[in-house]
Amino acid sequence: MKKIGIVGATGYTGVELLRLLVTHPDVEISHVTSRSNVGTRVDAMFPNLRGFVDLEFSDPSIEALAQCDLVFFATPNGVAMKHVPALLEAGTKVIDLAADFRIKDIDVWSKWYGMEHACPDIVAEAVYGMPELNRDLVKSARIVANPGCYPTAVTLGLKPLVEAGLIDLNNIIADTKSGISGAGRQANVGTLLSEAGESFKAYAVQGHRHQPEIAQTLSLLADTQVGLTFVPHLLPIIRGIHATLYVRTKTNDNRQNSDESSLQSLYEKTYKNEPFVDVMPPGSHPETRSVKTSNMCRIAVHKPSDNQVVVLSVIDNLVKGAAGQAIQNMNLMLGLDETTGLMQPALLP
Amino acid sequence: MKKIGIVGATGYTGVELLRLLVTHPDVEISHVTSRSNVGTRVDAMFPNLRGFVDLEFSDPSIEALAQCDLVFFATPNGVAMKHVPALLEAGTKVIDLAADFRIKDIDVWSKWYGMEHACPDIVAEAVYGMPELNRDLVKSARIVANPGCYPTAVTLGLKPLVEAGLIDLNNIIADTKSGISGAGRQANVGTLLSEAGESFKAYAVQGHRHQPEIAQTLSLLADTQVGLTFVPHLLPIIRGIHATLYVRTKTNDNRQNSDESSLQSLYEKTYKNEPFVDVMPPGSHPETRSVKTSNMCRIAVHKPSDNQVVVLSVIDNLVKGAAGQAIQNMNLMLGLDETTGLMQPALLP
Amino acid sequence: MKKIGIVGATGYTGVELLRLLVTHPDVEISHVTSRSNVGTRVDAMFPNLRGFVDLEFSDPSIEALAQCDLVFFATPNGVAMKHVPALLEAGTKVIDLAADFRIKDIDVWSKWYGMEHACPDIVAEAVYGMPELNRDLVKSARIVANPGCYPTAVTLGLKPLVEAGLIDLNNIIADTKSGISGAGRQANVGTLLSEAGESFKAYAVQGHRHQPEIAQTLSLLADTQVGLTFVPHLLPIIRGIHATLYVRTKTNDNRQNSDESSLQSLYEKTYKNEPFVDVMPPGSHPETRSVKTSNMCRIAVHKPSDNQVVVLSVIDNLVKGAAGQAIQNMNLMLGLDETTGLMQPALLP
Amino acid sequence: MKKIGIVGATGYTGVELLRLLVTHPDVEISHVTSRSNVGTRVDAMFPNLRGFVDLEFSDPSIEALAQCDLVFFATPNGVAMKHVPALLEAGTKVIDLAADFRIKDIDVWSKWYGMEHACPDIVAEAVYGMPELNRDLVKSARIVANPGCYPTAVTLGLKPLVEAGLIDLNNIIADTKSGISGAGRQANVGTLLSEAGESFKAYAVQGHRHQPEIAQTLSLLADTQVGLTFVPHLLPIIRGIHATLYVRTKTNDNRQNSDESSLQSLYEKTYKNEPFVDVMPPGSHPETRSVKTSNMCRIAVHKPSDNQVVVLSVIDNLVKGAAGQAIQNMNLMLGLDETTGLMQPALLP
Repeated sequence: MKKIGIVGATGYTGVELLRLLVTHPDVEISHVTSRSNVGTRVDAMFPNLRGFVDLEFSDPSIEALAQCDLVFFATPNGVAMKHVPALLEAGTKVIDLAADFRIKDIDVWSKWYGMEHACPDIVAEAVYGMPELNRDLVKSARIVANPGCYPTAVTLGLKPLVEAGLIDLNNIIADTKSGISGAGRQANVGTLLSEAGESFKAYAVQGHRHQPEIAQTLSLLADTQVGLTFVPHLLPIIRGIHATLYVRTKTNDNRQNSDESSLQSLYEKTYKNEPFVDVMPPGSHPETRSVKTSNMCRIAVHKPSDNQVVVLSVIDNLVKGAAGQAIQNMNLMLGLDETTGLMQPALLP
Repeated sequence: MKKIGIVGATGYTGVELLRLLVTHPDVEISHVTSRSNVGTRVDAMFPNLRGFVDLEFSDPSIEALAQCDLVFFATPNGVAMKHVPALLEAGTKVIDLAADFRIKDIDVWSKWYGMEHACPDIVAEAVYGMPELNRDLVKSARIVANPGCYPTAVTLGLKPLVEAGLIDLNNIIADTKSGISGAGRQANVGTLLSEAGESFKAYAVQGHRHQPEIAQTLSLLADTQVGLTFVPHLLPIIRGIHATLYVRTKTNDNRQNSDESSLQSLYEKTYKNEPFVDVMPPGSHPETRSVKTSNMCRIAVHKPSDNQVVVLSVIDNLVKGAAGQAIQNMNLMLGLDETTGLMQPALLP
Repeated sequence: MKKIGIVGATGYTGVELLRLLVTHPDVEISHVTSRSNVGTRVDAMFPNLRGFVDLEFSDPSIEALAQCDLVFFATPNGVAMKHVPALLEAGTKVIDLAADFRIKDIDVWSKWYGMEHACPDIVAEAVYGMPELNRDLVKSARIVANPGCYPTAVTLGLKPLVEAGLIDLNNIIADTKSGISGAGRQANVGTLLSEAGESFKAYAVQGHRHQPEIAQTLSLLADTQVGLTFVPHLLPIIRGIHATLYVRTKTNDNRQNSDESSLQSLYEKTYKNEPFVDVMPPGSHPETRSVKTSNMCRIAVHKPSDNQVVVLSVIDNLVKGAAGQAIQNMNLMLGLDETTGLMQPALLP
Repeated sequence: MKKIGIVGATGYTGVELLRLLVTHPDVEISHVTSRSNVGTRVDAMFPNLRGFVDLEFSDPSIEALAQCDLVFFATPNGVAMKHVPALLEAGTKVIDLAADFRIKDIDVWSKWYGMEHACPDIVAEAVYGMPELNRDLVKSARIVANPGCYPTAVTLGLKPLVEAGLIDLNNIIADTKSGISGAGRQANVGTLLSEAGESFKAYAVQGHRHQPEIAQTLSLLADTQVGLTFVPHLLPIIRGIHATLYVRTKTNDNRQNSDESSLQSLYEKTYKNEPFVDVMPPGSHPETRSVKTSNMCRIAVHKPSDNQVVVLSVIDNLVKGAAGQAIQNMNLMLGLDETTGLMQPALLP
């Protein structure tokens, strides 16, 4: 049994890690920390865990955490970077579910996250933890940057087209919608049921932190800069992300390569060995609920008119968009089967 | 045109007063105060009011408010009592939508609200603003205590039975359910959509402030102490209260007076001239949405078995349970027609 | 008082017409028809109307309807076209809330609606009832085709840009999201709360009936064919449409005309006299709830990067997207003030 | 591996059985039937099962089902009784998730379910499948009647008090609230999101089929007739039942036995070895979400005033209220560990 620590386990990604890890056969949760809840039983805060977790929240100390084989940081941005160097030094592996290690360009990171970075050298070392892109790198990584929720849905949705060089890379549009758990478990007027329920809105149209993260990944895949318009919206549901992706095929394209059935084949081929990407049959419209509670990303590809491709991609923002993908990375880093603990069907209804 | 002030207009009862008053033909809103938002345009905080309210939030000053004919306090408990004496002195009428003037027994009030009362003499003068009970007193009142949301639904549902002396007064059960706007527009983890959505729970089973308020009114109606068990629950909807009321008919009762059709007649007779109480046909199950956005209380009375009466009573907690009933009281206090500004059908769907 | 008839009043657009018309000062509802509910009281089906409508559903007969000054058809597609010729002959004006008279090209209509048209000549005469485009034509029309819900939100959002000739007309993307009341009040597994709640999906990506309707209007405004990609999605809310519109400014454009503040001015100027279009301040993200229950369309215009414009447009699909716009048209057709009966603030929360 | 059949797997209890059984280590699903969907892949109807179920719906034939070790009937009331005799004859065990075998008094059953019973003798043999009451009988049963959802929540909530003889058995009130999945996956106007969303109502106050089922069980526990008032309500959520139970302690009771801490002890003692009943700490208010997706029943006991006990009991209506309890019964009937396949924490958020 591998020993696992979770730092900052009072948020939604933290409790989701707990929900998934308590039935994982190869790990035991040995430390669950929360600076502001030291001494509180974990299952007093989260009654769904009664009978599954017999721990109290403890103070995050490097000494204690260093006894773990792997530590998850489910903390606000800017926390992990302060502790990761010491943990790596001690030989403990780390997965950061926040954004501290996602963006390679430190200046870009500082601009979007509004602080100086505490350990730029470790950013350089960190592996971007999307197994469908970087499986082998994740296996040997000491430190993994777990991708953002929107970036997971958008990147998996666009990867085949970008790699195949079929589309106009200057004009990619990602219209994305997220369930409200993505906003976290903070007291906030805007995410009250009375405010966000029975309503829908866009936000951050002028710029959102996930835009540079997605652009970085797509540019690496394309080996050139991409032009990405990214507009997030807030859904009045708890879990789920839906990305509607609009791309133009190259106008001088040999039409055969980009008709709808060729695109379908391209997607099926790209993902045929991926345990957590499901290319839906032609004509499908995946619902967010079809992945609720599961680590699956479901994708459908459409070509409604000449040159216009529309890709639909759905994930559960707390699973494949956060805790589930983190556990997938953990499995790889600890030499376990990648799917261990993650093979349950989604919840329906 | 009567001049109206609203103190503390940034909460849900405040914005609901604004929504209803902007189309009221006989009043103009002259002051809208919020200590923490001085200078902000009202319609910048509440875009639904764009084009309807051309005011900024101002600081609550007695001098300014004293220019109003009537002032609503839509403030937290304990605020109105500090300002009401000066306003009454200045000749301005007051309706308090909080609890400062609802409970006549000052010791009981202090116990439940956790503070000393600033003006017990005015509590004695204040009229409990439920027109179906105290219409004439409201007309001549300087200060009205607007009833709580639960007390409105429960009291209107039980009044006919209590007055008629048909039931066992020692064993009244009010199982009540409220939409989450009743918890107000405060940042709070418990009322986040991610916490309160897709869930349901009871709260305050050991005791809730509305229990003594309801018990006070029912005891006055019965002219004796009543025994009331009151259990509130939180509904994952924005607006609406549903009270399910369980009472036992007296066992030595002449059966004729309490069979189902006699009870139906009793309710219809009691409320036949009431503009805002609607006794539904026999066998009805009123939905909360049937009163959403309206000042109506809809009631159905059932007798599923010998001696057991079940009354269903629904209101919109922000209208008949708060702002609408307050405007009904305002109309009476200002000598206007009681229903002015309040006669719109509920929203469906 | 003008006499009004409503054919097919058991659906959501029908009951919404009733909700809005019962407080309209200049009309009286004289006929409410429903073939399958003859003899049922209207307020037995819709308890929100208790006290407001003292009518039964009647059989739709031309003789009876011909006594009305104006008749609304709130029927499924293909019904109005069978009855409109006789009503116009009898001198009764008609507003069709379905699609029978929206599309001028009869072949296109037949393709999308799957039937032959019963009166193509009247299609030619019918005025597309969007007052912001066709106010004068509506005033003198005998027959008005009330626009679809999505077309209303999208067209109002794009009109200024299309008319000004600032954008690439070959690459317009409308990513639209609708509350579920748009699917109507039919028994259907897909729109059950258990199926559509807590979920989100796209639908009809291969083609939707509102695409040719929008394209027709935009092409008229542009005086040339436009290329429009239209993707609708289903929101787990009852009311509200949000359109996120992506357009590219012309690359050879004089930058001054299309910087963000010029675009803001263009929108404000275009709509400055419109009672039901509200251009929000720069940087805004209108929420669907900001128009819930109201006839307002709120719009914000953004330019997140060079050449990329994003317009956000929200309406209540049952009001400005159906019954409210129909009443706006009715007011114009009957010589009443355009805003009569429609000036209430939206519901919040 | 035991072979399992599911008859009528297109409803919510059917798909929930599938969701839970696909990860059960000791059984394989060999037959999934649906008369109206023969030949359709199961995962085409329920995409959450893609990758987990490689079967088509087949016609329900006794020959095929008789090859199973155990067959679940997830069919409408009145279906199972027609097929069960032949299956038992063939040596196949049966669990009926509908009501055909729940009520021992055939006349009572016929009155409430509106049909004649096809096999009254098997009703006599059938075991009421609530392991907390009948564990040993279930182990040896050929045919198990899986309890109703409301009866499960109510019975587990009241069992300790009824058995201990502490309460007035003539005046038990069960105010119950159910998520809408309890109404099934049938096209129905009343359960559309537009109708049932953002609303709340009671139903069947005059009488509901679960009243005689609960009364039968409580009367057996008490060894005398009980008087039960049962009022169900419809919650605008997908999953979850909350029962609020009101009982009076006997007035001549030795107070010591029924003070709050004694009641707490009674509950804890009664359920201390039960894997799926969780007695919460004193003062708790269990939320329905604390058991969402899990087979747990969580209970809290309160005594807000003299003689008045209030018990709160929550379950997931599709798990402990249907498919989960059925699998618990299956485990017992097949000699497996009772908890196999059912030990996952609830979903939060």
